[in-house]
Amino acid sequence: MKNISLAHGGGGEEMNELLGEIFKIFNNDILNAANDAAILGNLALSTDSFVLNPIFLDDEINIGKLCVCGSINDVLMVGAKPKYLSLAFILEEGFEIEKLNKILQSIQKECSKAGVLVVCGDTKVVPKGKGDEIYINTTALGEILDKKETKNIKAGLSVLVSGDIGRHGASVLIQRNHLEANIKSDCKILNEEVLELLENNVKVVAMRDATRGGLSAVLNEWAKQSGNDFLIFEEKIIIQDEVLGLCELFGYEAYELANEGTFVLCVEKEDEKKALEILRKYNKNANIIGEVLEEKASRVILQNYFGAKRFLETPKGELLPRIC
Amino acid sequence: MKNISLAHGGGGEEMNELLGEIFKIFNNDILNAANDAAILGNLALSTDSFVLNPIFLDDEINIGKLCVCGSINDVLMVGAKPKYLSLAFILEEGFEIEKLNKILQSIQKECSKAGVLVVCGDTKVVPKGKGDEIYINTTALGEILDKKETKNIKAGLSVLVSGDIGRHGASVLIQRNHLEANIKSDCKILNEEVLELLENNVKVVAMRDATRGGLSAVLNEWAKQSGNDFLIFEEKIIIQDEVLGLCELFGYEAYELANEGTFVLCVEKEDEKKALEILRKYNKNANIIGEVLEEKASRVILQNYFGAKRFLETPKGELLPRIC
Repeated sequence: MKNISLAHGGGGEEMNELLGEIFKIFNNDILNAANDAAILGNLALSTDSFVLNPIFLDDEINIGKLCVCGSINDVLMVGAKPKYLSLAFILEEGFEIEKLNKILQSIQKECSKAGVLVVCGDTKVVPKGKGDEIYINTTALGEILDKKETKNIKAGLSVLVSGDIGRHGASVLIQRNHLEANIKSDCKILNEEVLELLENNVKVVAMRDATRGGLSAVLNEWAKQSGNDFLIFEEKIIIQDEVLGLCELFGYEAYELANEGTFVLCVEKEDEKKALEILRKYNKNANIIGEVLEEKASRVILQNYFGAKRFLETPKGELLPRIC
Repeated sequence: MKNISLAHGGGGEEMNELLGEIFKIFNNDILNAANDAAILGNLALSTDSFVLNPIFLDDEINIGKLCVCGSINDVLMVGAKPKYLSLAFILEEGFEIEKLNKILQSIQKECSKAGVLVVCGDTKVVPKGKGDEIYINTTALGEILDKKETKNIKAGLSVLVSGDIGRHGASVLIQRNHLEANIKSDCKILNEEVLELLENNVKVVAMRDATRGGLSAVLNEWAKQSGNDFLIFEEKIIIQDEVLGLCELFGYEAYELANEGTFVLCVEKEDEKKALEILRKYNKNANIIGEVLEEKASRVILQNYFGAKRFLETPKGELLPRIC
């Protein structure tokens, strides 16, 4: 690898390789834990840059809503309540102030829904052609209520997903190809469901939102990290028909498409029903999709309705870059 | 104002106007305090995106060193000890991994000097032509030792500067114009001098590093925020001859050129000597440059060697964008 390629941004194997390469120089326990947010005593810190294309997906969802949801959800995933957000803009010369205002309104709306304050910011301007309208970085800081760490994943846990999958990636695909389809991104703040799980002492061991690389990336990362095999039942994973149709048309795997308001959970077997009950209040497509096996081969095994099995691999290639 | 212009990125009046416009929607006391870092109880949080051009200034100073210094210094300026850093990269397709490695080494070197851990990160890739090699966002989190807030600035305080000014801006100018001149950016971490001031209980009231918009921007912001006039003695401000020459050549005002390791302080009059003594250990060009007056007209008054006075205005126009 001598140069950066678009595949390095997609959420698949190439990105993991690059991240490993970049962040190994900063080797420390907090970073190496590879949770969605860094755990600093009772604080959780998470950063993301957003380079969405196009920046407006529909009337409601744009890069502004996306950046707040992305950062806030990452903090929630370690069992923390998000409290503060920093906001840094890289604006391209010529970018319309009217568009900026729409984005700002989306940011403010989501922050106030989540009870999060924007406490610091920065703006930079790059010449025309050295950016693409607007790039946003958000960093979220939260207070840990009940720490969730992916290193605690072990055999016997149930695996759940909080809703149907692939809708965010599919909605970007529609916009880029100027198609008409009844697919809306799942982009949303997960505050309510996550806090309800925590407040009800549901035995959640680990959580991760399934963004770049989708469900497939999360399960494979967990399998690698824990060493355990994961058994996942295909018929338990709900995917909207329109998303499946689009995947067929473009040759994508729905499991690899990004989500922005859907997360994966490992829960103690005894609490799987309690967890599901809470999750279904917010999304009827939430489901128990599988379990963590004793076998230590770091594989994700997909079993279909007829009992046939295949491996779900870590996504590879360009996937859909610039979806978040 | 209908579109973003380069002037919005320079650190002058246009940028202030844009920042005011953007951040008024998030109206809250922490943000409105407009300190270098947000003060969150005993924590300090600061964010910055870096869009430097060129990304390498010399063998030692590049966008990597700059981003660490910038974020860490912001946290120091509110009287906090920097502890953690987040790191988010926007990489342009085709960017050379070798350059990335050099930048990473600079980041790691500065972080370890400052005792700061990189605890979370993100990478995004944009297509060729939608970026400019590399943009970096850093967000720093620190622990407040002895809170310094610009709202406490009042009449009677002494104004000090920690070194000679204008060298960072001038060094960028040299690189962009392929000139040869003996000017090295002042880019450095201010950990040692700031922590020594705090540990010795020097009565520092407020601090700010003089980055975009330079000394001129800091003094004018403080004058506006406090309402007080500032009287500054020109002959007390040390500027390297080569920087002055360059300013004459290009028509810049050295007071408006960015610095990346030079800060301005308001100190109780009785402690000005003690402060200066500490600052001079680190930079012999540190000096007491003026005082905060009783008059409430928010002006920065520059007095020259012969007693003639003029106003130092907030910088305007394009200045030098993309210097940090």
